[in-house]
Amino acid sequence: MIDTDTIAAISTPLGEGAIAIVRLSGEEAIPIASKVFEGKNLNEVSSHTIHYGKIIDPETKEMVEEVMVTVMRGPRTFTTENVVEINCHGGLASVNRVLELVLGYGARIAEPGEFTKRAFLNGRIDLSQAEAVMDLIRAKTDKAMNVALKQLDGKLSKLVEKLRQELIETVAHVEVNIDYPEYDDVEEMSHQMLLERTKKVYDQVEKLLETAKQGKILREGIKTAIIGRPNVGKSSLLNAFVQETKAIVTDIPGTTRDVIEEYVNVRGVPLRLIDTAGIRETEDIVERIGVERSRQALKESDLILFVLNYGEKLTEEDRKLFEAVDGLEYIVIVNKTDLEQVIDLEEVERLANGKKIITASMKEDIGMDQLEATIAETFFEGDIDGGDLTYISNVRHIQLLKQTMQALKDAEQAMEAQMPIDLVQMDVTRAWELLGEIIGDTVQESLIDQLFSQFCLGK
Amino acid sequence: MIDTDTIAAISTPLGEGAIAIVRLSGEEAIPIASKVFEGKNLNEVSSHTIHYGKIIDPETKEMVEEVMVTVMRGPRTFTTENVVEINCHGGLASVNRVLELVLGYGARIAEPGEFTKRAFLNGRIDLSQAEAVMDLIRAKTDKAMNVALKQLDGKLSKLVEKLRQELIETVAHVEVNIDYPEYDDVEEMSHQMLLERTKKVYDQVEKLLETAKQGKILREGIKTAIIGRPNVGKSSLLNAFVQETKAIVTDIPGTTRDVIEEYVNVRGVPLRLIDTAGIRETEDIVERIGVERSRQALKESDLILFVLNYGEKLTEEDRKLFEAVDGLEYIVIVNKTDLEQVIDLEEVERLANGKKIITASMKEDIGMDQLEATIAETFFEGDIDGGDLTYISNVRHIQLLKQTMQALKDAEQAMEAQMPIDLVQMDVTRAWELLGEIIGDTVQESLIDQLFSQFCLGK
Repeated sequence: MIDTDTIAAISTPLGEGAIAIVRLSGEEAIPIASKVFEGKNLNEVSSHTIHYGKIIDPETKEMVEEVMVTVMRGPRTFTTENVVEINCHGGLASVNRVLELVLGYGARIAEPGEFTKRAFLNGRIDLSQAEAVMDLIRAKTDKAMNVALKQLDGKLSKLVEKLRQELIETVAHVEVNIDYPEYDDVEEMSHQMLLERTKKVYDQVEKLLETAKQGKILREGIKTAIIGRPNVGKSSLLNAFVQETKAIVTDIPGTTRDVIEEYVNVRGVPLRLIDTAGIRETEDIVERIGVERSRQALKESDLILFVLNYGEKLTEEDRKLFEAVDGLEYIVIVNKTDLEQVIDLEEVERLANGKKIITASMKEDIGMDQLEATIAETFFEGDIDGGDLTYISNVRHIQLLKQTMQALKDAEQAMEAQMPIDLVQMDVTRAWELLGEIIGDTVQESLIDQLFSQFCLGK
Repeated sequence: MIDTDTIAAISTPLGEGAIAIVRLSGEEAIPIASKVFEGKNLNEVSSHTIHYGKIIDPETKEMVEEVMVTVMRGPRTFTTENVVEINCHGGLASVNRVLELVLGYGARIAEPGEFTKRAFLNGRIDLSQAEAVMDLIRAKTDKAMNVALKQLDGKLSKLVEKLRQELIETVAHVEVNIDYPEYDDVEEMSHQMLLERTKKVYDQVEKLLETAKQGKILREGIKTAIIGRPNVGKSSLLNAFVQETKAIVTDIPGTTRDVIEEYVNVRGVPLRLIDTAGIRETEDIVERIGVERSRQALKESDLILFVLNYGEKLTEEDRKLFEAVDGLEYIVIVNKTDLEQVIDLEEVERLANGKKIITASMKEDIGMDQLEATIAETFFEGDIDGGDLTYISNVRHIQLLKQTMQALKDAEQAMEAQMPIDLVQMDVTRAWELLGEIIGDTVQESLIDQLFSQFCLGK
C-alpha cells in the first residue's frame, strides 16, 4: 500500500523570503539530488549533515542556484524515509527551477500532505498526530497552537488508546462468557461489568466532547462580522483590533483576491473577521444587509459586533439591523462616547434585549478592554487558559466521538433490554472501531487519502 | 564597524507552509539556541549537522515546537559567523513563538537584509553580489533569475574589477609622470596612453549600459496595463496570459489588499499586469480612464494592451482611448474575430498610427502567439536569449555607470584642453571610485545601511 516513489515539493510558503526549501523523500532521494548537485558527493556524506554547493542543470551545465543541502537517511526522518532538503535563496523562479530539475531526474511531485501521509503510513505518527501537524501549521494564535501541539505530542492518542483498551478488555470478557457459557456466574458479573464499563467510557467521551465547541473556536477562530451603518466607526473598530494584535491576513488558496480573511488575536482566541475588506472599501454594508447573501453571512457568523453611534439618534437603519441580528450571538458597541450623547441608551437596551452593550470610543481608546473581556466571557466564560485540558477541535474527531457515544448508548439499551450478549458485544466493538478511526487504526484508505489531500503542499 | 550581536529572524516567507525557519547568526547563536532546545547538546555537536528535538520554554517547561536544528559554525556559513537554523512545522503562531524565545534568551531581531549585510561586511561577497541575492529572491522568471545568478556568481564584479584595474594602472602611470617630471618622453606617451585607455574603459562602460534597459525589464518586468471599454475581452486576454503561464500574484508588502500585482511570463519576460484586479472586478475602466489618476497610471506603464471588439463598430469611447494612449507604447488587439467583422480596420490602422495591430480571438485561442512575439519584438528585438551577456539591471548600478562615463568624459576633455595632468588624474580616480561603489569597495556606510534595508526580513 505504501508508495515507494521518491517525492518532491516546495516545502516553504510561496512568496519572497530568504530561504525556500525543496524537499525530497524516498529511496532515491539522495541519488536524485546528487545528480543535480555540484559539491560533495551526497551519496557518501554522513546522515544528518548539511553541505554547501550549487544546483547545476546537468544538460546545459548552467548553474541554477547556490544552495545548502541537508541529507538525512531514514528512519530518523520526518517520513522515516531518506530525506533531502535543498535550501535555496528564496526566490520563486529559482526554487521552481530546482524543483523542475529534481522532477526531471526521477522524483515525482508530491501530493498535498504526502510527506506527512508517509510519516503516518510508515508508523512514525498516528492519524490524530498527523492532523495535529496540519493544525499546527494553520494555528492562528498561541492557544490554538497549544491545542495542536498537545495533539501532536500524542496526548489525544493516549487518551483514545486508554478508552479503547477499556473497551477491548470488556469485549474480551464478553468473549470469555460466550466461549465458556458453562461459567454462569461469570456471565452474570460480566453483564453488570459491561454496563459499568461502557458507562465509564461513555462519560469520558462525553467529557471530551464538552471541550469540542471551545476547541473548535481555538482552532478555527470565532467567525466575526462587524456591522453598522456608515460612519459609526466600523473601520476604527477593525483598526483597533489590528493595531493591538497585528492582524494576520490570509489569502484563501485557489482564489486571487476574492476572499481574504483577517485574523486578530483576542486574548489568545483568534477572531476571524469576515469580509473586512468590504468594510474598508465601502460603507454600504447597510444596503448590502438587505441582500439575502449578507443575511446568510450573518447567520453563519459565530459573533456579530454591531456598532452604533453615541452621538446620533438611532435611525431606521439601526433598527433594521437589530431585526437582522435577532436571535444571533451579538455584542452592541456604542461608539464615539467622545461626542455628546444623543443616542437613547434605554432604547438600545430594549432593542438589544439582554445582549451585552459596551460604550466605547475608538478615538480615545476606550472600551476595547471591555469588549475583549466580553468576547472571552461569551465563548470561554472568561477563562481561556487552555491549561492541561485536551481540547477536541477537529470536526472529524467530533463526529467519531458522537458516533462512539451512540454506539455505547446502543450497547447500554441492548443490555437493559436483555438482548443476547453477542449483540451487545457488536455495539461495543463498534465503539472501539470508531475510536480507532481517530488515531487511524481502523480507518479506510479512501478516507486517509481524502484527509491528507487537505494538507498544504510540501508537508 | 561590524555589529557582533547575535541576530535572529524568520527566514521563510510568512504564510502557511510545511517548513518555517528561524535563523540565528553570531557568536552566541549556538549557546542561545541550545538554551531553548531539548535534544542533543548543540554546543557539542559537529558543525554542519542537523538534529531532531523540541523547543521548550525554559520558564514554563512547555513544549513550543517539534523541530530540526541545523548547527553551522563559521566561517563556512552564509554570514561567515556561527549560524543556527531552527526548522519548524511551518505554522505562523509556532514559528513566532520560537523567534520570541530566542529573542528572550539573548538574540536580537535582525534588520531586513542584515544576514546578507554581514556576509558583505565580513568579506564573503561584494556589494553587487549581495544585491544579486535580493534580485534572485525577487526574480519573476527564469531569465530574470539568470541575470541575478550571473551577478551572484561574480560575473559583474569581475568585469567591474577589470575596468577598475585598467583605470588604476593608468593613474599609476600618471603618478610616475608627476613624481618624475624629468622624464619628458614618458609624459608625452602617457598623455596619448591616457586618452586611449580612458576611451577603452569608456567604450566598455557604454556597452554595459546598453544592456540596462533590457536588464531592468528582465528584473522588474514590463509594467503592462490592459485597457478597453466593457465587453471587448480584457478579462479573456488576462486569463489567456494566466492560463498559459501561471500567474504569480504578489501582495505588495505593507498593504493588505489595496495593490495586488500579477506577473505573467511571456517568453521569459515578466509582464507585470497593473490593476488586473480592477479589470476582473469591474468593467468600468473607460469611466476610470477619465480620472487623472488613471491617465497617470497609463503614462507610467511600459506597455499598454489596448483591446477592441472585432464584432462592433468603433465607439466614441474607443476613440477617446486612442487619444489617451497617444504617444505611449501600446499594442492594439482586435479581439473576437470569431464574430462577424463589423469594426472598420482601416480606421483602426489610421488611429493606431503605425503601432502594431493584432487580430485575435481569445475564445478560439487565436492571436496569443503573435501577441507574445510582438511584445518580445518591442522590447528585445525578438531576441530574449540572455545568453552570456552580463545585463545591468540595478538602478544604482546604472546611475554609477553613467557617472563613471561622465567622469571619463571629463578626463578626456581635460586632456584635450591641455589641462594639468593632475587634474585629469582626479577625474580618472573618480571614475575608479564610482566603479568601486558598484562592488562596495568605496561605498559609504550610510548607503550600505540603506541598501540592505530594502531586503526582506530574515535574509
